[in-house]
Amino acid sequence: MAIIESVPNFSEGRRPEVIAALAEAIQAPGVLLLDVSSDPDHNRTVITVAGEPDAVLEGLFRAVATAAQRINLFEHRGEHPRLGAADVVPLVPIEGITLEACVELAHRLGRRIGEELGLPVYLYAAAATRPERRRLPDIRRGEFEGLLETIHLPERAPDYGPARVGPAGATVVGARPFLIAYNINLRSSDVEIAKRIARQIRESSGGLPAVQAKGFLVEGLAQVSMNLLDTDATPLHVVYERVAALAAEEGVEVASSELVGLAPQRVLLQAAAHFLKLEPTTIERTIEAAMRRAKGGQSI
Amino acid sequence: MAIIESVPNFSEGRRPEVIAALAEAIQAPGVLLLDVSSDPDHNRTVITVAGEPDAVLEGLFRAVATAAQRINLFEHRGEHPRLGAADVVPLVPIEGITLEACVELAHRLGRRIGEELGLPVYLYAAAATRPERRRLPDIRRGEFEGLLETIHLPERAPDYGPARVGPAGATVVGARPFLIAYNINLRSSDVEIAKRIARQIRESSGGLPAVQAKGFLVEGLAQVSMNLLDTDATPLHVVYERVAALAAEEGVEVASSELVGLAPQRVLLQAAAHFLKLEPTTIERTIEAAMRRAKGGQSI
Repeated sequence: MAIIESVPNFSEGRRPEVIAALAEAIQAPGVLLLDVSSDPDHNRTVITVAGEPDAVLEGLFRAVATAAQRINLFEHRGEHPRLGAADVVPLVPIEGITLEACVELAHRLGRRIGEELGLPVYLYAAAATRPERRRLPDIRRGEFEGLLETIHLPERAPDYGPARVGPAGATVVGARPFLIAYNINLRSSDVEIAKRIARQIRESSGGLPAVQAKGFLVEGLAQVSMNLLDTDATPLHVVYERVAALAAEEGVEVASSELVGLAPQRVLLQAAAHFLKLEPTTIERTIEAAMRRAKGGQSI
Repeated sequence: MAIIESVPNFSEGRRPEVIAALAEAIQAPGVLLLDVSSDPDHNRTVITVAGEPDAVLEGLFRAVATAAQRINLFEHRGEHPRLGAADVVPLVPIEGITLEACVELAHRLGRRIGEELGLPVYLYAAAATRPERRRLPDIRRGEFEGLLETIHLPERAPDYGPARVGPAGATVVGARPFLIAYNINLRSSDVEIAKRIARQIRESSGGLPAVQAKGFLVEGLAQVSMNLLDTDATPLHVVYERVAALAAEEGVEVASSELVGLAPQRVLLQAAAHFLKLEPTTIERTIEAAMRRAKGGQSI
């Protein structure tokens, strides 16, 4: 059984009845609603759902349709850059499914939104059809207001749907690996240590692949604050050990680490296997995994 | 609906056709076959099954019958102590059933094995009928070869079946809480180091609560082989760190560790939280846990 997650962003963070309608619409049969976070300043709501791909796609389609009916970008104001009512819809592989399969799903969902709702759709991240559409900030440049002027240009041609912008704007659909927000707190109040370590581990200055990092001072402790963009490229435990080793070189210990938001349990199980020097495949040998397999395969 | 698990141990870890026959026999209708782990050095196979009690009992009876037909203890050699072809059959409550109810089931299964297969049966752990039969090592003392000489003694009288030992030996049936079989391999060929460490960590010689341990030489490496009887009392990562520390005192590193059979995933998640210095409650912040909660509450 495959499980995907999606974290669609809608351009409405103020009207509770519209937020409720989005949360209602997204719950197609089989869709698990994990979280709804609204930000009035950004005037934006992020909903987290998970489930089997077909169920999640149906829920997302319904929520995008609801957003297109209820949200008018000509009247929308907020801090956060946006192109449309249903602004961004990322599909994330969780279990039993590849990123490549999620790219296919992004095409399916994008086509349906374009054809049935008549909205322009851009594909991004792993689902991007052009290199310059991989990064969200590049697609969103000029925002809704800019797109009104530029959508007829060849470089702005949507991947699906018409090259025409209405009050619901455009929707960006894509596939990407799970992103983990992860902080490591050092037993030191010297923020410069955290900043030096952040520079050494982040990919942009030649560090670990798919790691973004910054140094902060948080509650008196130096903190290395990270986004792990692809834990297949750089597992969480590799990040932990590298930061701990660099801290040790500075004569400092790790005080604690913390996950911000949710992480797939695989990431923690892989860390356990690493630290316990277990075969990596041991993480498939839990009772829970075995019962899932035996029920699915009946009997193995 | 009640779910029990059973992890029967058979004295055959080398002949694939016999192992296959055991795995085939145990799959009575409704039995989920979760795992088959064979160890040629121990010459032993551990099969994990789960399901409703009646189904699991039927599968276990069939597998014990197959073992009695196919395994001859007079010809059996292996590292691991054993009394019989179907050596130990523990019944473990998983869901919707108490340990006490599993004691009843152990009596039912033991009686049937004794009466229909004519094998001597000893009840152990929570199902024991005498205090000196609670612990497996006490029942297994002298092994198969010793039992040939002693079964006529009153203190060796079986709980079910005849006081007579044939090539299939005796079977020990019982009920107990979940148990994790866990081995740590040392980067040393000196089995004495493993034996010294085993003595220091096992509860019976004053070590860690609910830990049984022995030292072996397996594939040229000293191995500390353990049963963790209660990971709330002594978590798996505590065992790992204690063994690693004692090995370090001997100037030896841990080469690897391994789960024999299955473990509840909670045990690995707790280990991850420990090594990563995460808050222990972080293990509730996986996507999967959030999905279980959402399913329970359906829909939030």
